[in-house]
Amino acid sequence: MMDNNDVATHISKKFNQELEAVRNKVLAMGGVVESQIELAIKALVTGDMQLAELVIKQDNQIDNFQRDIDIQCTEIIALRQPTAFDLRLVLVVLSLIDELERIGDLAERVAKMAIHLSNGSVGKSDPHYELKHMAGLVQAMLKNALNAFARMSSDGVLDIIRSDEEVDLEYGSIIRQLITQMMEDPRNITRMLDVLWTVRALERIGDHARYICEHLIYLMNGEDIRHLTPAEVQDRLLS
Amino acid sequence: MMDNNDVATHISKKFNQELEAVRNKVLAMGGVVESQIELAIKALVTGDMQLAELVIKQDNQIDNFQRDIDIQCTEIIALRQPTAFDLRLVLVVLSLIDELERIGDLAERVAKMAIHLSNGSVGKSDPHYELKHMAGLVQAMLKNALNAFARMSSDGVLDIIRSDEEVDLEYGSIIRQLITQMMEDPRNITRMLDVLWTVRALERIGDHARYICEHLIYLMNGEDIRHLTPAEVQDRLLS
Repeated sequence: MMDNNDVATHISKKFNQELEAVRNKVLAMGGVVESQIELAIKALVTGDMQLAELVIKQDNQIDNFQRDIDIQCTEIIALRQPTAFDLRLVLVVLSLIDELERIGDLAERVAKMAIHLSNGSVGKSDPHYELKHMAGLVQAMLKNALNAFARMSSDGVLDIIRSDEEVDLEYGSIIRQLITQMMEDPRNITRMLDVLWTVRALERIGDHARYICEHLIYLMNGEDIRHLTPAEVQDRLLS
Repeated sequence: MMDNNDVATHISKKFNQELEAVRNKVLAMGGVVESQIELAIKALVTGDMQLAELVIKQDNQIDNFQRDIDIQCTEIIALRQPTAFDLRLVLVVLSLIDELERIGDLAERVAKMAIHLSNGSVGKSDPHYELKHMAGLVQAMLKNALNAFARMSSDGVLDIIRSDEEVDLEYGSIIRQLITQMMEDPRNITRMLDVLWTVRALERIGDHARYICEHLIYLMNGEDIRHLTPAEVQDRLLS
């Protein structure tokens, strides 16, 4: 396991600064993505369309972050020729920004659904409470994953991966509720499908947060655990 | 633009062989993913559950391909310290196997839906014809993208990216058709939602095939075009 002290002992101070700069940029990008999810959910629940528009505008920022970090990482590999942990760090960063970009796209989709839904009749029967709860779960997953990356530690990362199962249960329960509502009031099917896409987007945000955790375990432990179950991962890490 | 001759002029013959081996493995992985889509669609249309089970079993092969190629690429970067085109090639390969793995997951989802759907009443009203047509479009996108990677050429890649718009139109049309059917026969909503998830999975396979093309343009031209419209991409490549 590697901590901040080890990272600081790089022979080349300049190289160390470059890695730090990239890490900080990833965290800044993560912060924007977190705020996108926050605002998209708020737009959905309150019907405040200015918030939804803001989320869509933030997409540009995300794209710029991704492009910049991508270029910086490629330059670091070409010029610094990192190996071992440093190489894994740069490769993991390239994966993390892909995950963050896709989470940003999903937050944008939620924002667009908020706009779409607010144009219909006010949906008193929409499962707002359940949506907010599920959103809270995936937001915590992403936040904890980014914190683990900031600390450069895989402690607690397994718990984040496990909480994705809770998200999936919640997801299944909301979907069943929506199906019942569709059957009871078929005129509302189009609206219910919009809610369904929103729930689906949240569920996929949880998946990407889980992928981030899997990348982090690879970074810290050098283990590729992407195709293992949580129980197998635990065995592997404890052995 | 780079062709096979240039690739062959590497100073280190051994290094060249390693890059060739990785490229061939990506193409082999792509072949398995293509067969997964083919079989999943066949399972869906014919109701042959053995085909669906086969698709699910193939997932293991895909995971092994991804792990092997990942390790090989990391070793090449660490030991060969590639720069310029070679470095882009290795980084793009890492992205391509991610896209292929996610396409494989989506094919598996289609196969699972085929099993699910075959357990219900036979769906004469299911939009089989439209599904097959849309599947044909995304299969062609993936096939052409893999061919472009095999040829190491970005010729025609823009056309593949453009055909994703056709997929999206087809997708919208099938969804509208499904909504109408749900409203007409609410007892069938659960079944129609399964068809809807299937159509959604196909649409996302098209997205990932488009991402593969975007990676290829970056590889061949050194341009990051991920956030441009097709028209902007054309301008950029012609300029």
